Amino acid sequence: MNEMSNSNLIDRTLWSLRRAWRDVAGAAKDGDLSGILHPDLPEADQDLVRRRIELCVSGTGGEVSARARAADLGRGYLALNALGRERFLRIVANELGTERRTVDIAIEAYRSAGNDDERDRAQSELRQALESPRIKLFTQFNGLPEGIKFLVEMRADLLPLARGDAAMAAMDRDLKQLLATWFDVGFLNLQRIHWQSPAALLEKLIAYEAVHQIRSWDDLKNRLDSDRRCFAFFHPRMPDEPLIFVEVALVTGISDNIHTLLDESMPAEDPHKADTAIFYSISNCQRGLAGVSFGDFLIKRVVDDLTGHFHNLKNFATLSPIPGFMKWLSEAEEAGGAELLKPVEAEKLAQLVDDTKLTDVLARPDWIQDEALVSLLEAPLLRLCAHYLLNEKRHEYARDRVGHFHLSNGARVERINWRANVSKAGMTQSAGMMVNYRYKLEDIEANHEAYRGKGQVAASTAVKRLLRL
Amino acid sequence: MNEMSNSNLIDRTLWSLRRAWRDVAGAAKDGDLSGILHPDLPEADQDLVRRRIELCVSGTGGEVSARARAADLGRGYLALNALGRERFLRIVANELGTERRTVDIAIEAYRSAGNDDERDRAQSELRQALESPRIKLFTQFNGLPEGIKFLVEMRADLLPLARGDAAMAAMDRDLKQLLATWFDVGFLNLQRIHWQSPAALLEKLIAYEAVHQIRSWDDLKNRLDSDRRCFAFFHPRMPDEPLIFVEVALVTGISDNIHTLLDESMPAEDPHKADTAIFYSISNCQRGLAGVSFGDFLIKRVVDDLTGHFHNLKNFATLSPIPGFMKWLSEAEEAGGAELLKPVEAEKLAQLVDDTKLTDVLARPDWIQDEALVSLLEAPLLRLCAHYLLNEKRHEYARDRVGHFHLSNGARVERINWRANVSKAGMTQSAGMMVNYRYKLEDIEANHEAYRGKGQVAASTAVKRLLRL
Amino acid sequence: MNEMSNSNLIDRTLWSLRRAWRDVAGAAKDGDLSGILHPDLPEADQDLVRRRIELCVSGTGGEVSARARAADLGRGYLALNALGRERFLRIVANELGTERRTVDIAIEAYRSAGNDDERDRAQSELRQALESPRIKLFTQFNGLPEGIKFLVEMRADLLPLARGDAAMAAMDRDLKQLLATWFDVGFLNLQRIHWQSPAALLEKLIAYEAVHQIRSWDDLKNRLDSDRRCFAFFHPRMPDEPLIFVEVALVTGISDNIHTLLDESMPAEDPHKADTAIFYSISNCQRGLAGVSFGDFLIKRVVDDLTGHFHNLKNFATLSPIPGFMKWLSEAEEAGGAELLKPVEAEKLAQLVDDTKLTDVLARPDWIQDEALVSLLEAPLLRLCAHYLLNEKRHEYARDRVGHFHLSNGARVERINWRANVSKAGMTQSAGMMVNYRYKLEDIEANHEAYRGKGQVAASTAVKRLLRL
Amino acid sequence: MNEMSNSNLIDRTLWSLRRAWRDVAGAAKDGDLSGILHPDLPEADQDLVRRRIELCVSGTGGEVSARARAADLGRGYLALNALGRERFLRIVANELGTERRTVDIAIEAYRSAGNDDERDRAQSELRQALESPRIKLFTQFNGLPEGIKFLVEMRADLLPLARGDAAMAAMDRDLKQLLATWFDVGFLNLQRIHWQSPAALLEKLIAYEAVHQIRSWDDLKNRLDSDRRCFAFFHPRMPDEPLIFVEVALVTGISDNIHTLLDESMPAEDPHKADTAIFYSISNCQRGLAGVSFGDFLIKRVVDDLTGHFHNLKNFATLSPIPGFMKWLSEAEEAGGAELLKPVEAEKLAQLVDDTKLTDVLARPDWIQDEALVSLLEAPLLRLCAHYLLNEKRHEYARDRVGHFHLSNGARVERINWRANVSKAGMTQSAGMMVNYRYKLEDIEANHEAYRGKGQVAASTAVKRLLRL
Repeated sequence: MNEMSNSNLIDRTLWSLRRAWRDVAGAAKDGDLSGILHPDLPEADQDLVRRRIELCVSGTGGEVSARARAADLGRGYLALNALGRERFLRIVANELGTERRTVDIAIEAYRSAGNDDERDRAQSELRQALESPRIKLFTQFNGLPEGIKFLVEMRADLLPLARGDAAMAAMDRDLKQLLATWFDVGFLNLQRIHWQSPAALLEKLIAYEAVHQIRSWDDLKNRLDSDRRCFAFFHPRMPDEPLIFVEVALVTGISDNIHTLLDESMPAEDPHKADTAIFYSISNCQRGLAGVSFGDFLIKRVVDDLTGHFHNLKNFATLSPIPGFMKWLSEAEEAGGAELLKPVEAEKLAQLVDDTKLTDVLARPDWIQDEALVSLLEAPLLRLCAHYLLNEKRHEYARDRVGHFHLSNGARVERINWRANVSKAGMTQSAGMMVNYRYKLEDIEANHEAYRGKGQVAASTAVKRLLRL
Repeated sequence: MNEMSNSNLIDRTLWSLRRAWRDVAGAAKDGDLSGILHPDLPEADQDLVRRRIELCVSGTGGEVSARARAADLGRGYLALNALGRERFLRIVANELGTERRTVDIAIEAYRSAGNDDERDRAQSELRQALESPRIKLFTQFNGLPEGIKFLVEMRADLLPLARGDAAMAAMDRDLKQLLATWFDVGFLNLQRIHWQSPAALLEKLIAYEAVHQIRSWDDLKNRLDSDRRCFAFFHPRMPDEPLIFVEVALVTGISDNIHTLLDESMPAEDPHKADTAIFYSISNCQRGLAGVSFGDFLIKRVVDDLTGHFHNLKNFATLSPIPGFMKWLSEAEEAGGAELLKPVEAEKLAQLVDDTKLTDVLARPDWIQDEALVSLLEAPLLRLCAHYLLNEKRHEYARDRVGHFHLSNGARVERINWRANVSKAGMTQSAGMMVNYRYKLEDIEANHEAYRGKGQVAASTAVKRLLRL
Repeated sequence: MNEMSNSNLIDRTLWSLRRAWRDVAGAAKDGDLSGILHPDLPEADQDLVRRRIELCVSGTGGEVSARARAADLGRGYLALNALGRERFLRIVANELGTERRTVDIAIEAYRSAGNDDERDRAQSELRQALESPRIKLFTQFNGLPEGIKFLVEMRADLLPLARGDAAMAAMDRDLKQLLATWFDVGFLNLQRIHWQSPAALLEKLIAYEAVHQIRSWDDLKNRLDSDRRCFAFFHPRMPDEPLIFVEVALVTGISDNIHTLLDESMPAEDPHKADTAIFYSISNCQRGLAGVSFGDFLIKRVVDDLTGHFHNLKNFATLSPIPGFMKWLSEAEEAGGAELLKPVEAEKLAQLVDDTKLTDVLARPDWIQDEALVSLLEAPLLRLCAHYLLNEKRHEYARDRVGHFHLSNGARVERINWRANVSKAGMTQSAGMMVNYRYKLEDIEANHEAYRGKGQVAASTAVKRLLRL
Repeated sequence: MNEMSNSNLIDRTLWSLRRAWRDVAGAAKDGDLSGILHPDLPEADQDLVRRRIELCVSGTGGEVSARARAADLGRGYLALNALGRERFLRIVANELGTERRTVDIAIEAYRSAGNDDERDRAQSELRQALESPRIKLFTQFNGLPEGIKFLVEMRADLLPLARGDAAMAAMDRDLKQLLATWFDVGFLNLQRIHWQSPAALLEKLIAYEAVHQIRSWDDLKNRLDSDRRCFAFFHPRMPDEPLIFVEVALVTGISDNIHTLLDESMPAEDPHKADTAIFYSISNCQRGLAGVSFGDFLIKRVVDDLTGHFHNLKNFATLSPIPGFMKWLSEAEEAGGAELLKPVEAEKLAQLVDDTKLTDVLARPDWIQDEALVSLLEAPLLRLCAHYLLNEKRHEYARDRVGHFHLSNGARVERINWRANVSKAGMTQSAGMMVNYRYKLEDIEANHEAYRGKGQVAASTAVKRLLRL
């Protein structure tokens, strides 16, 4: 599996696009851009690209022809290397923005509107003036076979270039807005993924899984066993590309350990007896859809689907990583960590190890195997983690990004689990701890409101009590 | 078949929506609007609707909850009668428009932007300020099962109300813009319809056929025979609803008579020997998508599909009605018809009939059976028709709406056919004449440009010669 | 609908076979039989056919080649007319029977077998000797596209010829045996048919419906409404051809009138509230499968499917015709009808009409509208009908063929319904009466055993009481 | 992959059957055999089984009930261990054979038949008498969900027991005959298998591949690349179980080396440029279908499919193992191998190695790396191999079983390839050699006839020449 990486898959994606468009582009009489352009898109080639873009946007020869030309442009883009693509995108960003003069005129008309009716009309026109011509170009790409996939890939190219570049960022806002409209959750299909799914799709799960790496096809098969569920959202025009997927375990009681959950040697349990659904991994698959969110709907729809099939389910919870805990801890200690440990804890620690800083202790390899250290650290780390999850904020909201996601969706912090993930990643991120966020269906709305409105973090009594210890 | 009307089908559509949403709406804790509202939506009920809309648009309780509430609102809407719906739409139009103050502030910010970067950002904000909250509400409806169908139906309700009503018209522009984005041709599936298609779908063809009425299931079956093709565009989220469909006959030579084409007693020919594809009927199916066009793409895609399957096809043409000819003729005669007929023609006519006006002659029942009249009128009517199609304009473009559609797509006027449709409708619209528009693939772009740019109508030599006779 | 008949459909079937086999047969190097043979298959052509059959059966050139030759033979068969086909079948019957000498030898070997093992082996060989070579030919036809359909059609041709013709009858037994193995219920798919089904399939329901003629597409649509169900068995290799179908109404209480059941103007009821499933029509579709029975499995499987979906269903019953009642009555009267009516009934009848025979009265047009007659005849006719259904036998079993079918399956005679079907057919067959057979799930086995073993007819108390009145 | 074995998969198959039948069997009122029987099926339990079998075969309570009982019996069977199953099968073999008395009576009737008609009828009855009741039981199992899979598995259990056991062998003949009828090639679907196929299916390819082991999912993916094809036959009632599959490489020129063919690091070629299809692996998947052949049809159908898609294909050939070569060589040497090598060859060999026997030389590890030995042995081994393939017979036909398969299908021996498979298996079977069998479409019939009729092996001139060297 090691050699199959995300970028490999994306390369293949683009290759398939190129092939799919070959014939379409053949229809464009103006010749075949992809065979002409230098991969770097040097100055000398840029004028040609400019003229072709102009032909598309002006709609010369009718929309049908314009879309055939867009296919050729798209093929040209795909044949470029990273530098060439940046240059291509810059042309679009610079030359297909809104025209300032048109906007100014429309604003003037709006301001001088005499009555409501005139203002309504002027508003429509102002809105149109603000719609940049590149939106039209993007839409033309959509008419191609797999065109929407092309746009998603193009945005993946654009995103890193948009940081700190106003023109590129403006174009990114346009493209994101368009994609958000097209990827409205109303258009997405929720699909169950199982061992009967195409290998070509399962291979993508392996590549895209971002939380707990899928180590082999056997590991994957275990995650699709009869007491497991996996669901993904798909767009009808990208049927082979999952947008986001979630892995669920149907178990008895809320799970407290990821190793047990992923142990291939454990026999499958009868899912109809399960009382709890554990969402143990949620992965976004498309970098080009960053900021277009459907995670909350995914959870809601999966809960609906599961309750329809398994009548004994009572609890819905996650078993989640705490990606920012150690980083926060280190910063806190840096900033004067004296108060992190209680004096008595610090004292006991000093008897065991030479390190004076808690993070140094936690950096020791294999401290988690040292029972003396473990029994000493458990209480303070759980407390610190509860503090981190419940009280540490960034712009009013939970500092932890996974926490922020689930709290926004109306979950509460249910339980912090000690020695729940002792893999290297788990130790590095959160000293081996994991957290359950729980979705109590009757509290979701209220939790959401309290969190979005006042940044208030819902938590179980048990977790709150940790703070007070 | 008579009793199955478009409105019947739509009623059933709405009923199915209501049923599909029952459970979704059940999730909304605020109760069930559809059971509460009076069908008229009197003053007393409007406040409740206002509050519910407000809850949706504010996103209270999170997007997931908001969409559950939108389901309930939608169900409420469907339970209203025509008056109630008008009132409902008026609330949305009046209260969910853009807020003038917000727009004014955003304009101010834009005008005072110091540099390009600031202006880019201000522009984005201005655009957002101009996006009315009802767009959000419409989008929430889209999240429902068959939500997009609901929006199409709602626009069908809205369209007649928007004529001459600025607020409603502004809302219609919003809704149309949203639907145009969602019904981008890139998302549509071209699907062949045949006798193996579901009866429930075929029934809709019968209801929606707008050019040559389908008289019975046998008539329909004949139109789906082996030497016929029928294609429709579908949206992936409205898989049971054709958006537009075209009926094609695969024949030898360009057809000149609709009765022959639709004759059920004619045996099917071998389509692989056909050299000509005749597009003899194109019907839009969704009133709610008026102004969102995909007809040109439909023709292009069907031509592509046919050439892929039938290698002997050389000609692509229509056999089209001329819906505005008689109306124009009558207006022209009213305005001084003396010049319509040449003196010698007028003279001969006077010998045969008492009527002094040409339109009076054409209004006689069964004149088309009177061989003397027919042989006398054929030449002048063909000439007049050629004049009408080639020279009569409305805002620079062809006056005839069917003509305008095909000329915009790059076709040319190929031939005018005498006694081509002697049904009542054919006689009333165009004195029994029909016209072939021909798509010569190599001329489409040039024809389109000449027509869109200068209103220039492409025509065959034969048709041009008619003018000179 | 009138012009679409069963035979039309079958003709089209054969035409499609011919087309499907064109290419396959092209592979047979021996030339194309269908282009050579005279439709009558005169003496002169029969030798050619004989030689070709010989080549197939001998397997010359390998099985793959033999099947290609069989395609050509099959195509030849399809090009023959009725006379030609009879001659073709006679060749197969006469020349591909078992060889008497081979059988005799095998019998001798069996009889002289020394021990069990030898006998086992000899038995196998005897069985093989008894397997006629035409079985091999039939099997080769099966390898063709739609080959099994061809065999079903061929048996439909054969059946009438097999009556009273020993050789043809022997061949029919072979073919029937083969088809029975291939159409084992284990291979059949139960499929629901609804308004979403292909028109090409629904058209076949219209043609095949044998109990209550489907008058129009609207009538059909009504029978597929939300409170109706239609199920059919299909063979995986004949996916477009229903083998048998049943129409079911989901109602409250056991229906007593077919007109009400089929009334298109009645609104659909909520099927989830229904307590009764009425099987009101069962039609076999393939003449060529006569004697291969799956009706009992159909009812069982449909009951299973319905109970899975509709939890309020408590009763399963038919509303059935009584096809043989009037015939029996007429024969009974002929044979001395004095006892059919009680003296007092006969007396009253004599006061109303001149006819002395009951069947003459029942032959009067519109007697069913004559309230005096109706009220007089109701009691005796119900009694006579109960007698007919419960007591009249043919070879130990119920004389009525519909009755025999349901009683064999374990149903009981539940109720006789007066004026239940006053159509011409209903009056002619059963004086307007219909009967409910009821499937009480817990009694099916016992009823079946009692009926199959002792010809004992199960009946409700109410029906038994009719006998005693 | 190592731990996933064929028997694992079959265990899972049976488990799924057990689950599928749970509900069906629930319907059988007689209780649940699988919960009652001891896995060994000791004497004490056998009577119960006998009674249940009797109930099935007698059809008590009707066929529908009988099949429900058969489900229960089947479930009982699946719960038994190997010993229990043997005992179960023995009961069926011993008690459900044909009844001798019945057969004797039928024979008597046949012998005393007075005329053809009587004989025809008597023949039918004799055939029926010879049909053992267990056929009925097997057919009843077929009515269950996945019943046919059950029968295939049951035959896999039966096959080893039938060797040298007359009663079991007789039952095996019955079961095989039934399966041969049901698995007639006319019912099978040819399906392409690719990387979009379900993982659950691909996993079976890995398990069933019998010629060149599939080492990993990456290896498998390589075999399904764009210049490779894989096809399998499926039965419509066992859609998840391939019956036989073939792996094909689309290449230029006839391949001479399996390592090159399976090399994952080689880039895929453009299959549309390929002139040769190499069938490099054919694997039967179902032990229970031993003796039911469809390999020849598979090759024919795949050739048809490929030629339809790839118009440059001119050659169809295999790259096949020679499984029996070394065994024959060893036997030949044992029996007096003096003549295997020519004197001059033997002399040279003696100079290089001490071994006096050729097979001892070939048993040396890594001799294939010793260039001196290799160059010495190439000529004689190719000659010996040609002799083995062309001249060595068993019952008139080619001794090599792979050779026999392709020669029966009409192929010829095209080329023997030196150092074509130097894996351990390749060295052990055939001293690293492989052979191409070539299917020249125009010679297939003649080759088949010459081989089947006279055991004549077709070969290319090049191979024949090897013999003469």
